[in-house]
Amino acid sequence: MSHRLQATTTLLSLLVRRGETVAVAESLTAGLIGAALADPPGASSAFVGGVVSYATELKHRLLGVPADLLAREGAVHPEVAAAMASGVRRLTGATYGLAATGVAGPGSQDGKPPGVVHLAVSGVGGRVWHRDLNLAGTREEIRQFTVNEAVDLLRGVLEANLGEQSG
Amino acid sequence: MSHRLQATTTLLSLLVRRGETVAVAESLTAGLIGAALADPPGASSAFVGGVVSYATELKHRLLGVPADLLAREGAVHPEVAAAMASGVRRLTGATYGLAATGVAGPGSQDGKPPGVVHLAVSGVGGRVWHRDLNLAGTREEIRQFTVNEAVDLLRGVLEANLGEQSG
Repeated sequence: MSHRLQATTTLLSLLVRRGETVAVAESLTAGLIGAALADPPGASSAFVGGVVSYATELKHRLLGVPADLLAREGAVHPEVAAAMASGVRRLTGATYGLAATGVAGPGSQDGKPPGVVHLAVSGVGGRVWHRDLNLAGTREEIRQFTVNEAVDLLRGVLEANLGEQSG
Repeated sequence: MSHRLQATTTLLSLLVRRGETVAVAESLTAGLIGAALADPPGASSAFVGGVVSYATELKHRLLGVPADLLAREGAVHPEVAAAMASGVRRLTGATYGLAATGVAGPGSQDGKPPGVVHLAVSGVGGRVWHRDLNLAGTREEIRQFTVNEAVDLLRGVLEANLGEQSG
């Protein structure tokens, strides 16, 4: 079993055990996070789907990211990731929204160089967890690394919550 | 350049040349078609994003697939693929909606065995193109083959339209 399949299998098991679900909102990865979460057989028990908001306009149109935030900060910003995560959670009814926005390259976007990536998880009660990355590598490497980090971020959130619940 | 990257680069060039865009609505592929379309640098000129409606409920909730169609036929049906394609086109404002629904396996779904896949393209004026597949292979092979067929279907539609325009 590949490292990633192992990681997504663990993540989905954690969710299923808690009766929780996840939806994704992706930009630079364009569907790779969803595809990774759907990789383990039986993934539909915890992964519901999500939105690929590749064009900036769709971040507002489909996910409700505030237009003034996008106008002011561009699409690559921690608050945009948080709004994407909250938006997809609201849209799908999933327990968690997991979002990624960033620059895969080769060119810059909105003044940010390739490798700048912002991840966010939105959970119950409006809680948001952030992870900001500065990655090196090719377009493909940046996208693949982002998938691994996104899966890892949500696993960390679930394990922390589990600690809270049992502590 | 890999065969797939060559195919998606060709597809995006055809769209850019015509000033047209595409959005995706994915089920069994869970984001792989979007990721493939975003693979070529500069993809944002023609690929806008889309919806991953992995859970059947999201096909209705996000894409407007009629609930009675889903109740009657299940999620794996040519009409569902067509409704997904039309739904994502309407939702995003893209010129074309490209949709895939099917069974990746290992188990059956809604009475359909692994490898049954329905693709659809929705275009201007409510026109819909269909491609129905019976694939053999592992879960991963079925998903990857579906991506190739989806890219190929849209390329075929664009080339046919081009013929119409110039003919």
